[in-house]
Amino acid sequence: MAKIRVGVAGYGTIGQRLADGVAKQEDMELVGIADMAPTLAIRALYEQGMPYDLYLVDGADKSKFDEVGIPVKGSFMDLVNNVDIMLDSSPAGVGLKNKINIYEPAGVKAIFQGGEKNEVADVFFHGYANYEKGLDKNYLKLTSCNTTGLIRTVDCLDRAYGVEKVAITIIRRVADPGDYNRGLTNALKIDQAPTHQAVDLMTIMPHIDATGILVHTPVTHGHIITVVAHGKQKITKEMALEAFSKHPRIRILRIEDGFQGNASYFKYGRDLGHKRGDMYEVGLWENSIVESGDDIMYAMVIPQEAVTIPETMDGIRAACHMQETREEATSTTNKYLGIGKFRELGLG
Amino acid sequence: MAKIRVGVAGYGTIGQRLADGVAKQEDMELVGIADMAPTLAIRALYEQGMPYDLYLVDGADKSKFDEVGIPVKGSFMDLVNNVDIMLDSSPAGVGLKNKINIYEPAGVKAIFQGGEKNEVADVFFHGYANYEKGLDKNYLKLTSCNTTGLIRTVDCLDRAYGVEKVAITIIRRVADPGDYNRGLTNALKIDQAPTHQAVDLMTIMPHIDATGILVHTPVTHGHIITVVAHGKQKITKEMALEAFSKHPRIRILRIEDGFQGNASYFKYGRDLGHKRGDMYEVGLWENSIVESGDDIMYAMVIPQEAVTIPETMDGIRAACHMQETREEATSTTNKYLGIGKFRELGLG
Amino acid sequence: MAKIRVGVAGYGTIGQRLADGVAKQEDMELVGIADMAPTLAIRALYEQGMPYDLYLVDGADKSKFDEVGIPVKGSFMDLVNNVDIMLDSSPAGVGLKNKINIYEPAGVKAIFQGGEKNEVADVFFHGYANYEKGLDKNYLKLTSCNTTGLIRTVDCLDRAYGVEKVAITIIRRVADPGDYNRGLTNALKIDQAPTHQAVDLMTIMPHIDATGILVHTPVTHGHIITVVAHGKQKITKEMALEAFSKHPRIRILRIEDGFQGNASYFKYGRDLGHKRGDMYEVGLWENSIVESGDDIMYAMVIPQEAVTIPETMDGIRAACHMQETREEATSTTNKYLGIGKFRELGLG
Amino acid sequence: MAKIRVGVAGYGTIGQRLADGVAKQEDMELVGIADMAPTLAIRALYEQGMPYDLYLVDGADKSKFDEVGIPVKGSFMDLVNNVDIMLDSSPAGVGLKNKINIYEPAGVKAIFQGGEKNEVADVFFHGYANYEKGLDKNYLKLTSCNTTGLIRTVDCLDRAYGVEKVAITIIRRVADPGDYNRGLTNALKIDQAPTHQAVDLMTIMPHIDATGILVHTPVTHGHIITVVAHGKQKITKEMALEAFSKHPRIRILRIEDGFQGNASYFKYGRDLGHKRGDMYEVGLWENSIVESGDDIMYAMVIPQEAVTIPETMDGIRAACHMQETREEATSTTNKYLGIGKFRELGLG
Repeated sequence: MAKIRVGVAGYGTIGQRLADGVAKQEDMELVGIADMAPTLAIRALYEQGMPYDLYLVDGADKSKFDEVGIPVKGSFMDLVNNVDIMLDSSPAGVGLKNKINIYEPAGVKAIFQGGEKNEVADVFFHGYANYEKGLDKNYLKLTSCNTTGLIRTVDCLDRAYGVEKVAITIIRRVADPGDYNRGLTNALKIDQAPTHQAVDLMTIMPHIDATGILVHTPVTHGHIITVVAHGKQKITKEMALEAFSKHPRIRILRIEDGFQGNASYFKYGRDLGHKRGDMYEVGLWENSIVESGDDIMYAMVIPQEAVTIPETMDGIRAACHMQETREEATSTTNKYLGIGKFRELGLG
Repeated sequence: MAKIRVGVAGYGTIGQRLADGVAKQEDMELVGIADMAPTLAIRALYEQGMPYDLYLVDGADKSKFDEVGIPVKGSFMDLVNNVDIMLDSSPAGVGLKNKINIYEPAGVKAIFQGGEKNEVADVFFHGYANYEKGLDKNYLKLTSCNTTGLIRTVDCLDRAYGVEKVAITIIRRVADPGDYNRGLTNALKIDQAPTHQAVDLMTIMPHIDATGILVHTPVTHGHIITVVAHGKQKITKEMALEAFSKHPRIRILRIEDGFQGNASYFKYGRDLGHKRGDMYEVGLWENSIVESGDDIMYAMVIPQEAVTIPETMDGIRAACHMQETREEATSTTNKYLGIGKFRELGLG
Repeated sequence: MAKIRVGVAGYGTIGQRLADGVAKQEDMELVGIADMAPTLAIRALYEQGMPYDLYLVDGADKSKFDEVGIPVKGSFMDLVNNVDIMLDSSPAGVGLKNKINIYEPAGVKAIFQGGEKNEVADVFFHGYANYEKGLDKNYLKLTSCNTTGLIRTVDCLDRAYGVEKVAITIIRRVADPGDYNRGLTNALKIDQAPTHQAVDLMTIMPHIDATGILVHTPVTHGHIITVVAHGKQKITKEMALEAFSKHPRIRILRIEDGFQGNASYFKYGRDLGHKRGDMYEVGLWENSIVESGDDIMYAMVIPQEAVTIPETMDGIRAACHMQETREEATSTTNKYLGIGKFRELGLG
Repeated sequence: MAKIRVGVAGYGTIGQRLADGVAKQEDMELVGIADMAPTLAIRALYEQGMPYDLYLVDGADKSKFDEVGIPVKGSFMDLVNNVDIMLDSSPAGVGLKNKINIYEPAGVKAIFQGGEKNEVADVFFHGYANYEKGLDKNYLKLTSCNTTGLIRTVDCLDRAYGVEKVAITIIRRVADPGDYNRGLTNALKIDQAPTHQAVDLMTIMPHIDATGILVHTPVTHGHIITVVAHGKQKITKEMALEAFSKHPRIRILRIEDGFQGNASYFKYGRDLGHKRGDMYEVGLWENSIVESGDDIMYAMVIPQEAVTIPETMDGIRAACHMQETREEATSTTNKYLGIGKFRELGLG
């Protein structure tokens, strides 16, 4: 079978990682990436010898790339015309314009990230929770980083024991490492409740009642979410741990092993030698799981930069009908991304 | 009636505020404060002209005070022998030694802060939740800052509608402003669950099932706690808001008024002209109150430096039997501390 | 002599403190303050019983004040027509419009803060460095917080021993406490050199060659500046300390006393019982003074929220010719603001 | 020629990177690493399939490694007896004990990191500044991260134009990413001057007069140092830039390219795909270089986790007399570490 040909629009924090993720999928081919300006991300690509071909979106000034000596392969249309599906990680709002002006006319499928409005897509997608709904669709929108990680754990409990209700508290990292555009200094900031991640969860999993509160914190390495979940039956600590321990995209963390918080998890990814120190799995603390009467409560860390990459790969598989079922699709994605090895080794 | 004579041991973050709180109670007299070394807090007292008399605890080197020119009134025993009750805010563990070696032999009552073990006291005390248990007792221990604020809101709902269960998430400020001994840099840190504040709540309110998770964050101005509470009856958003809006030690905050987070609340205290910018009330965001099925969820901010002061004044009232009931005691404390004026003005 | 009548435009971080500063000057009268919206600062004023009269600037929606119950005294023109001089701490750029459209037509003097362009004023002013230049002028512009504090120390050395050249490093706090509009998370940020504070110093003190580098840091309590100064003669550590120790607006700090950094200085202001915990003096570490060959190097902390208030009071004195000389003017300001008492007590 | 056999003691932040650095040197062989407990760093090694052999230091509990399934190759003595030279990155103070008890009896050379006292070694070493002094020595001590980076730039100017005097301001990151043992929250902290880095510079370069001030800041990604240098002749901005632009271990940064501060530099390392996102070069901002009369001033960023690795490799070359001159040694190290490619591509 021919490899699925994939392009990436927007080579920022997410776009860089989408490109790397596609490059690892042996049944896909990364045709190239498109961007606007010779950002540090593009300069870093150049310093590495241009492993990915670069295309320029409309309005880009090619002379700025020439000044540095960065080679350009072609225009955005050259890229789009040469792929089966685009992964669009453009700034929020640009994705919709791209869909209308470029992808639809070119007859090319696309997957959008969480910054776009839901209306951009046929399906609001999560690889584990609703893979089958994405099959053969032209336009998918991925859940945001927090929602992606959250749904992994709720879907995990739901399939094992049934979940009726969740109340979440999101302790949000306010900016990514190196992001100078957003910031918060010595302050916690609260948002209007309910937080959109709870609303989004209900869109994907309409049989669950979800609400929650979000508080921004001045850190860069990973959101922490606490979940109070009410099951169809009482879910004990042991039952929860057993279910989580089987999910390939959830690592079980223990404080006594050294996982003291989100920064330990970030450091671990770096020490693993992962590119950029990224982690695809969420981390879930065994030490955090407690029973609240009939409810079960737990806390997880969401490595926000990379957590949506696996589910986006699943999305390509669904939209292009590469696999029939969520089991086949997610396990293929996992294999190519190296997810799950930690469990074979008895780690987490 | 003669004024109750009060001394303060340990003039740190809490001790300074206890002294100020007592000084405002017209039916109490602050006899003096005791400390060990000419800290910045003591130097600031000296720069203000020694409004409070200073006594030295055992082991203090008086020559260090003489060098600066700070006048010393007497020894710790001089202070203890001259009071009805001591407020002990010494470093953790010292309170127990003081009790055994000094307060008991001298026949003086004492109130300890949250850092001491529960065993130090006859009653683990909260002005609103169990005032009557403290009546005539010799030794009380106050709840910690988080627990004090948390119980205000849970007790408030409990008395109005009945509460059976709470699951809390504490987003903890890791250090006070100016504290160079503790710190956390670009990291969230998780503790073993259940967090002690939930356990402490159950000690004070044994009819409620409580659990929770605590995450430390690198900020200095106020903890934020989210609470998921299950009532004996369904508590709606309107019911919760109505109950909270009547509690003198709870301010209702609105994001649209400018209360964006804990730092806004701290700034507001400073702009009010309060000494040190302190706030005695917890802030509770109207924007945070959401229903989770039959449960009610909300978020509050705990101004950690001053929040326990009112309940400690209540404790003096209980131990010395100054008032018979919680209503009388708390309203007297509130009057002298200026608590509640905001509500008369229609603010929060 | 009749009191000088003063108004304040813009009741933000600086405007609040300007109003308090004027209210303390016994030879001035604070007629009122003007603002746009019922901000938290205005609500705090209301909660305190409106110690200052409130006037509304053009475009303000009075109904928003009525909703809260905040009394309004009149319009901005009502205020301007009733004063001798306005202190304008409006958002950057608004001051110039106010000057052209309001102050000049009304024949009212004004002092602008550092956010306005130099062209707004007749003189770029510093109470200690060029008081006499401000005499009888209609429009003054104050130096910014960093420049104000920096010039205090450089002018101090210059008058004592002669200074020819300074090279400064500004370690800037990125936002004020409670400021949610600016931020920086786990990052240092560097600006194009030379930093404007060095350029501004040369405008005020043209006989000195100044340059420097500024780095923003994610803290809220006070800038730290290091200075490498080259004197007309060699300035030893002892000579520098002697000069600094005589300046009423410079406190000498010692690490061993507990002044470990900018946060200790902020805490000390709070513990002094100063309104909002403000400090008018800069702090200069004795521990930081070192000789670099013939140069002298030292570090100071700038309490950015309040440091410009004394020099602004000096500015009123100059513009309204209340005193003839810098010595008379600054000592009068100091007396009313309580500056210098620390030295009489042998503190710093 | 046989490869030089190298061992690493202490697999922490520095030890991990030393091991990786040695593994890249084609004329060296990494025999193994030694540590005490199954830390996250060791678990990460295990998850990667044990690319480096693990030896246990005395006192380690092997059963803890067995529990996880981490294979152990042998004892610390097994490692030491099998190498030509040890790189000791044990906790401060342990290095000296290792030297006396283990390395000297075994007749094995060793290089210590900045945490040890100078007395531990025959030479206080920097690859560029005093390579020849290290030739054939048995024990070297490397300069600390700040000093290593600082000396690169001062030595660079010194060799080009002669330097007589430097006054430095170190804006220090207070903890490494993931370090939960140290911290600082919303505070700058000042140290007693002169800072040890200036003193250390004078030990290595005794012909230069150096002093300076250090301020700790609550960030994790790289120190920033400003330098005011006085040359034997006037060094202009152009002269300084020309010299810096030829040094392989100095990258020239421009704010307009996106290098806004230390966090951009850290992010760039991650985007380059470097292991752990590490950078071996210091970054020096062209935008920061200014003339201060006859002096030259500039600012650089020190990527603290990896910056000493190249100079440690140089140290092995000196101690084992692998190359005769600094030019040969540093260029060999650079070649194997991939340092300098950025310049061939016209980047920095």
